[in-house]
Amino acid sequence: MSAEEVLARCSELDLFSASTTGLERTHLTPEHALANRRVAAWLAEAGMHTWQDAAGNQCGRIEGRTPGLPALVLGSHVDTVPDAGSYDGMLGVVMAIDVARSLAAEVATWPCALEVVAFSDEEGTRFGTALLGSKAFSGQWDDTFWDLRDREGVTLHQAYLDFGLDPRRHHEAARDPGSLVGYLEAHIEQGPYLEAADASLGYVTTIAGARRFRLTVHGEARHAGGTPYERRKDALVGASLAITAIERIARERGVIATVGRIEASPGAVNVIAGRADLSLDLRAPLDSARDAAWDVMAADIAATCTARGLRFEAIETHAAPAAPCAGWLQQAVRDGIARTGDPDPMALWSRAGHDAMAVARVTDIGMLFLRCFDGISHHPGEDVREVDVAAGLVALEEAVRSAVRAYDAGATTAVPSPAVGLGV
Amino acid sequence: MSAEEVLARCSELDLFSASTTGLERTHLTPEHALANRRVAAWLAEAGMHTWQDAAGNQCGRIEGRTPGLPALVLGSHVDTVPDAGSYDGMLGVVMAIDVARSLAAEVATWPCALEVVAFSDEEGTRFGTALLGSKAFSGQWDDTFWDLRDREGVTLHQAYLDFGLDPRRHHEAARDPGSLVGYLEAHIEQGPYLEAADASLGYVTTIAGARRFRLTVHGEARHAGGTPYERRKDALVGASLAITAIERIARERGVIATVGRIEASPGAVNVIAGRADLSLDLRAPLDSARDAAWDVMAADIAATCTARGLRFEAIETHAAPAAPCAGWLQQAVRDGIARTGDPDPMALWSRAGHDAMAVARVTDIGMLFLRCFDGISHHPGEDVREVDVAAGLVALEEAVRSAVRAYDAGATTAVPSPAVGLGV
Repeated sequence: MSAEEVLARCSELDLFSASTTGLERTHLTPEHALANRRVAAWLAEAGMHTWQDAAGNQCGRIEGRTPGLPALVLGSHVDTVPDAGSYDGMLGVVMAIDVARSLAAEVATWPCALEVVAFSDEEGTRFGTALLGSKAFSGQWDDTFWDLRDREGVTLHQAYLDFGLDPRRHHEAARDPGSLVGYLEAHIEQGPYLEAADASLGYVTTIAGARRFRLTVHGEARHAGGTPYERRKDALVGASLAITAIERIARERGVIATVGRIEASPGAVNVIAGRADLSLDLRAPLDSARDAAWDVMAADIAATCTARGLRFEAIETHAAPAAPCAGWLQQAVRDGIARTGDPDPMALWSRAGHDAMAVARVTDIGMLFLRCFDGISHHPGEDVREVDVAAGLVALEEAVRSAVRAYDAGATTAVPSPAVGLGV
Repeated sequence: MSAEEVLARCSELDLFSASTTGLERTHLTPEHALANRRVAAWLAEAGMHTWQDAAGNQCGRIEGRTPGLPALVLGSHVDTVPDAGSYDGMLGVVMAIDVARSLAAEVATWPCALEVVAFSDEEGTRFGTALLGSKAFSGQWDDTFWDLRDREGVTLHQAYLDFGLDPRRHHEAARDPGSLVGYLEAHIEQGPYLEAADASLGYVTTIAGARRFRLTVHGEARHAGGTPYERRKDALVGASLAITAIERIARERGVIATVGRIEASPGAVNVIAGRADLSLDLRAPLDSARDAAWDVMAADIAATCTARGLRFEAIETHAAPAAPCAGWLQQAVRDGIARTGDPDPMALWSRAGHDAMAVARVTDIGMLFLRCFDGISHHPGEDVREVDVAAGLVALEEAVRSAVRAYDAGATTAVPSPAVGLGV
């Protein structure tokens, strides 16, 4: 299969969307089921045994020299944000399938099995909590997840039932560390650094851990016309000051903070907002820098709110520690990139979260990044060059071979991990 | 009927709500139909001939000394904002019905008829355009109104049909100026000034005209983690700077500006907002002050957006000139208040819009304001004292008698209008 065909498959998956005007495919929806079915067909065509696991992840496997050996897993996700691009997640899944097909004949001689997983939820778009597919895969389940609700009020528990999954059996999706050799994921960079360096591919040293909060500013709803300024407790003005403070503090401290969601209540043109709810997503290469920035932000916002007779509240909805890539899998990815003619590839730290972060709890991880157009992601303008996909296929296939050789040689911890953030 | 009964009727109308947790009754909804039916029963009980007009306004009429004379109209509205209080609009309707009942026997000797109108839409909650009921009543119809849509996408045209109204006959709701003597409306102040002056009642000199805009900031949706600050075009940060600038400029220039609605798109926790839409409501005692403030705001926001690579757009959705109350009806309301023992009542300018603004296009208007608790309105905490309602009933009844005397004497333009904003 060529890079052109890989890109055509990504476009084919665009058909499975909740929206007719853009791409939106979220966890356990009808369009997710259709995407899984298509991925299953491709996995089978690649020579793999296929199954949908108890958490809606679509899996494929080729046995090694004896059945039941630990598996080297390739994967990414098939869910999207609203109005998404075609490559975030899907490109990694389709590339993994192509590499599996290419390697299928030789896996029978390996000291391990080869698997591909298309994770069911990485973005967290539908239920507000990210990585629900890869968390189930890695056994990080919290029973409070069952009560998460989507915008229509449907619980995750009900969504499992609607999708034909049995919530009581979700633990069957969890993988035992002893059954795994490691995990490799190819992904578009979602940032501008490879393009700026004129490089097709890079290897990842660590994945920054995001913290996410729901911020609420409580004020008082009153008539827009009748209430003079000295009587106002406008929650939306408080929220606006919070948003501008968050940007200022993040820039000062070298972290990345985003408020992507906002809701003002009651939300009428002639009523002062009595309440505003915001989302906050916070990332940094070092968890300590991220946490220190949050402390400054929270104190700043609380002081602003108090001065205006508003009340500020923050609830943490997600927290992930930074996930370093294993040295031996970084080396495998470097070996893969070297095969494309770049013996000293660029090291990157991932500002975006990935399924690999969750998987890191049960096995070693490595990631290959592909250059994308203008750093655009989570947007229909997301784009990747065919020449970079072609290089990525060569690199991922060689990275798998290199990882299997290292595993066979018992050298899976021999290469030291480069410093976090090196080269960026 | 006592003030206690008036308040009980306001509570009774609370039952007709779209929400089980608070009051929300909007234009042409099933709960609006139920409220109209209840109001019609009260009008009939007061001795009035009743009908629902072609725009969903509920009307009642008692003829004067001969049938078909021009009418003095009392009224207010029965629609609400979301999570509303019980008195904004409804109190004026229920008081008007009580006064009509009290006067019913003597109207037969008058040189004019007496009418009560419960307007169908003042707030504009459902279709985003205010005063749809009183605009139809005063013949200010714009055929583009038919294409207005509610949040579910239902057009005003369809809503008319669903309510059992014939859109082709809406013009029958329009009143000819020659059929009207004047319009008197009682309303809670929705501001803090009467309470601060320890007064039950005040008369209105003018109603400030609001201008409303839909403001849009266009940025670029990108991945929240992967996009460094120098690459960001965050529409929500732009909108936040706009909101804080609007407050600053409004305070500096003595006008009142409110952003009550905001929407960020695509609205995901891990996506930079590519677009933000805001509502802006702008009021001042003088139209010239309001318009000058808007010019400064628009220039400030546009400059901020340009500096950040964002694009700013503003569409005016509503504009009303200030509506002065007629001198002779101001005097009638003063006469009414004098009857309660306050010979020199407080003059107020209304920062809030009212049906009277629309009605002013076809006849003279006057307004009586009642003290409300802590200036709170458009909020469930809206409250009014029984003693003030009792005084209001006396004042409104006497104001009607005074207006009829003036009309009979041909003195409907004899009293000069006090200066705008006097006493506030």
